[in-house]
Amino acid sequence: MKFCSDCGAPVALAVPEGDHLPRHVCTACSAIHYSNPKVVVGCVPEWEGRILLCRRAIEPRLGYWTMPAGFMENGETARQGAARETLEESGARVEVNELVTIISVPDINQVHLLFRARMLGAHHEATPESSEVRLFHEADIPWDDLAFRTVRHTLRHYVEDRRQGVTGLHVIDLNPA
Amino acid sequence: MKFCSDCGAPVALAVPEGDHLPRHVCTACSAIHYSNPKVVVGCVPEWEGRILLCRRAIEPRLGYWTMPAGFMENGETARQGAARETLEESGARVEVNELVTIISVPDINQVHLLFRARMLGAHHEATPESSEVRLFHEADIPWDDLAFRTVRHTLRHYVEDRRQGVTGLHVIDLNPA
Repeated sequence: MKFCSDCGAPVALAVPEGDHLPRHVCTACSAIHYSNPKVVVGCVPEWEGRILLCRRAIEPRLGYWTMPAGFMENGETARQGAARETLEESGARVEVNELVTIISVPDINQVHLLFRARMLGAHHEATPESSEVRLFHEADIPWDDLAFRTVRHTLRHYVEDRRQGVTGLHVIDLNPA
Repeated sequence: MKFCSDCGAPVALAVPEGDHLPRHVCTACSAIHYSNPKVVVGCVPEWEGRILLCRRAIEPRLGYWTMPAGFMENGETARQGAARETLEESGARVEVNELVTIISVPDINQVHLLFRARMLGAHHEATPESSEVRLFHEADIPWDDLAFRTVRHTLRHYVEDRRQGVTGLHVIDLNPA
């Protein structure tokens, strides 16, 4: 941030009174501009025992596999966001159920909320964000071609919990890669 | 947002290509500026069976009671944020444990992650953000003077779960007040 989004004047880093961290403060109108972590919401959609994954058609990690997930939008709940991202990225309609993981990724200022989900029908399709969308049996999950550490942790807990017949919540803090 | 934080030119609302929602887009440099929900992190600190609450010294809801909680900062994990907010608002040092609630508040674009926590000592004190900080027996919790719906839901689940000897996770979506 170089300019104030309220008045267009230059900003400077300064610690506001009563605060403890430097913030972008406007040199003209004194508006304080905060930057905070973003929430990524997504899910592991299941249909007849198989898991829906998407092959990324966009950077980063183009060509690698992920569960449907993306940035939570203003005005929606976490579960609504997970269902929306799933429809956008895979064409699948889901009922969003329990959380699998909550993953803090402090080096990129993100918190991921990743849920279990039940597909409401078999339909899924390639989309502008996913070059291929496919249902995988557990034995066929492409562990070596997953897009992100968050995906690997979540799928691992998902399949382990499913084998044990539990729906655990796993709170994970990722260190810098 | 009225001006581009990258170049200082005016922004206009437009739906970027491949997107589905209007964003603030710079009329000069075409930078796209997103606005997303913020994460509030906090905890229910316990010491010898009593629960630590803070009386708000700042608006909104000045004079009402809350658990320590505040906006998650860049570069920290959710649990680190909960411990930091607790120290800042109550002077208490805590070990942050399991989640009690995850609460989406779509009308104010927030997600609250509220944890159970064990105080590492009895110390607590008034702070610039809290006019009074006090340990409450369950029977003395000021239910009619709590600051926010998120506080009420979380304390209710906390005490109900504690009576039953469980540490449940409660995913809650709050409708507009």
